Amino acid sequence: MKVALLLTGNELMTGDTVDSNSSRIAQSLALQGFDVAHKVTVGDDLDLIVEELKNLTARYGIVIVNGGLGPTVDDLTAEALSMLSGQPLIENPEALSHVITWCNTKGVEANAANLKQSFLPENSSVIANPIGSAVGIQLVFNECLLLCTPGVPSELTAMLGGSVSDALKRAFPSAKARLVRRLKLFGMGESALQQLLADHCPDWPEEVTVGFRAGAPLLELKLEIDSMDSVDLRNACEKELETIVGEFIVGENDDSLASVVVDLLQQRKQQITVAESCTGGMIASQLTGVSGVSSVFEAGFVSYSNAIKQTVLGVDNHLIEQFGAVSEQVVRAMALGAIEFSSADYAIAVSGIAGPSGGTEEKPVGTVWIAWGDRDNLQSHRFNYPVSRQFFQTMVSALALDLMRRFLLGSTSLPDYFQRKSH
Amino acid sequence: MKVALLLTGNELMTGDTVDSNSSRIAQSLALQGFDVAHKVTVGDDLDLIVEELKNLTARYGIVIVNGGLGPTVDDLTAEALSMLSGQPLIENPEALSHVITWCNTKGVEANAANLKQSFLPENSSVIANPIGSAVGIQLVFNECLLLCTPGVPSELTAMLGGSVSDALKRAFPSAKARLVRRLKLFGMGESALQQLLADHCPDWPEEVTVGFRAGAPLLELKLEIDSMDSVDLRNACEKELETIVGEFIVGENDDSLASVVVDLLQQRKQQITVAESCTGGMIASQLTGVSGVSSVFEAGFVSYSNAIKQTVLGVDNHLIEQFGAVSEQVVRAMALGAIEFSSADYAIAVSGIAGPSGGTEEKPVGTVWIAWGDRDNLQSHRFNYPVSRQFFQTMVSALALDLMRRFLLGSTSLPDYFQRKSH
Repeated sequence: MKVALLLTGNELMTGDTVDSNSSRIAQSLALQGFDVAHKVTVGDDLDLIVEELKNLTARYGIVIVNGGLGPTVDDLTAEALSMLSGQPLIENPEALSHVITWCNTKGVEANAANLKQSFLPENSSVIANPIGSAVGIQLVFNECLLLCTPGVPSELTAMLGGSVSDALKRAFPSAKARLVRRLKLFGMGESALQQLLADHCPDWPEEVTVGFRAGAPLLELKLEIDSMDSVDLRNACEKELETIVGEFIVGENDDSLASVVVDLLQQRKQQITVAESCTGGMIASQLTGVSGVSSVFEAGFVSYSNAIKQTVLGVDNHLIEQFGAVSEQVVRAMALGAIEFSSADYAIAVSGIAGPSGGTEEKPVGTVWIAWGDRDNLQSHRFNYPVSRQFFQTMVSALALDLMRRFLLGSTSLPDYFQRKSH
Repeated sequence: MKVALLLTGNELMTGDTVDSNSSRIAQSLALQGFDVAHKVTVGDDLDLIVEELKNLTARYGIVIVNGGLGPTVDDLTAEALSMLSGQPLIENPEALSHVITWCNTKGVEANAANLKQSFLPENSSVIANPIGSAVGIQLVFNECLLLCTPGVPSELTAMLGGSVSDALKRAFPSAKARLVRRLKLFGMGESALQQLLADHCPDWPEEVTVGFRAGAPLLELKLEIDSMDSVDLRNACEKELETIVGEFIVGENDDSLASVVVDLLQQRKQQITVAESCTGGMIASQLTGVSGVSSVFEAGFVSYSNAIKQTVLGVDNHLIEQFGAVSEQVVRAMALGAIEFSSADYAIAVSGIAGPSGGTEEKPVGTVWIAWGDRDNLQSHRFNYPVSRQFFQTMVSALALDLMRRFLLGSTSLPDYFQRKSH
């Protein structure tokens, strides 16, 4: 079933706001079996809004409007619906009660601007907003179901999972819900993965749709099925994926490299420390972004200078003089020093040249040594990512965490990151 | 002058990609005096694309198309232009030469997919793409200027500042360029700043448009003028702003709190260190994200546990036992310990409860002590931000860097962050 979106707001036209709401709406609707086919964005311009409502309601069975429900004079959705449908705006008792309750909760008196939000077209109904003062509006016009939602992302999100979803279910009880699984991979590009699937799964079933979302640093693989009947098929596909690229699968949904490493450490009640030069605290920051990290992480060291590598991490000055700060010998000494000082079980250490300056012919910008593992089984390897400073730090942090993840899972062989075109 | 955008791509419809290109386009066009009035997004559907091209070219003098220039069968822009204008697709010598040169640079043979990108509608011309294989396409249809741009953000960005901007200048030589100044503020919300402007600048000149973009943690204030004639007016407005909220102005354009702190330290050839508990490396990571930081930052310490606060930073165990890890005494000892170990001139130290667990009645989740300054003039203060873990870490890092920024500028008085409604 096809859906059109109408987004309103001057801030969307000037580019001052990047529209993430339409992505939220599309992903939520997809789970209920509805596909967005057409998306129109206009500023706070009543004539243009009404014109687009006419156009879209004539062509689609469902139109979702986003924005324009607020209390200011720029918020024109109710008025546009009234002009479209020829129904007057009247005070809706449910909307009024919602606005007054909302104002009471905030400890303020409902003013004229607040009360404006309770005036809806006569034959419309309220879509509950559990967070904000503006209720959503539902109206059927020309056999098209119009659902109007607020532009505030938190309010929209709450409604998509609740009242909007309920309204769609009531209107289209036979729509088939879709089931989506999102797997997170690290170390493999989208085209390599597509090629692998084409090579190894030529008989991939039509019922299991595959989608990709390339992110830095994780690649998301989406498996979508139309009904519970296809669950077995999807599970078989997932098993096949596990065989082909299992080692690259980090987790699912909201999993990150850091959260998976923290989880593995929590399971074995062990601790990790980090000694960072070129990543400058990013690995520690990602680990400590995970709730509950304190049981597995006590200390991190950012040793940006050679002097600090010696005084804080106890790296032998001769190693730095002989091999340079960006060397296997130094990065291993950093890891062992960090383990020593922190009494952690495992360490990650990185030393590299993030650029834009500081490179040499032998060690150009993008060179990085990473050490990972425990005192008795410390791994180390040199990588090269000649990219922007920010992307370098992001990629090196991800690489280091993934190597640690693999180590904790028992693998010390070096993966063929971003290179394998076929298995 | 009003512009319409037509964005194409299935990934924009499913919500798997958030459209940031239209924001890039709108901001770039605004500098040249063009406003986006209408934005339509459709999937890779030839009929729908042609229909929308007809509709938009009939209504606007300029239509910018984004996406659909790539080598795959899903890339339909050239074909759609051909159907719209009735002109056949022919091999364009300039486009062909570009594709072959591009493939040569990459060390690959141009294949059929690559060569498809050199077929353009007969009366169209090439818009140069300095990065990718796909050239942009310029075509005049029905007195409407159509400019087709690639969906890859880096290619689009390069073209917006170059070949697309040139094409617009050639077509509309009398369009008036706009001048935009973007100021970055920390510690003040949008509504408070609006109120201040209303109170203190009732005679704000019409020629200087004010815009806001709320970000976390910085608020962007945009001052826009239509011509060089208004420069003096804008400068007067900026001076007025400086008087009212100068202490909250961090910098402009791409400045961040970290980059401004690094810059101030570089000017005085001094160094900073950080001792982080609840922010877990985020402050160090933000500082080391700034290119050239190594002259002002040598060491950072992430001391997540009490034991590490003692062993690494030399915090007296009695202080922790008597006052707790989240206390003025401990955070000051952390700062002094970090200065001692790193020989830096300044330190930032933070200790707090990021949550979601770990709070007590006396020190609930969101409590944080920050110390900042130098050995002889160390400041400290308690703040409270009972928000999500991630937002807490972001806000505390920003607070700490801003306090350091103000200290380096000679101010040790505590600002009235996020509270002042009027001056």
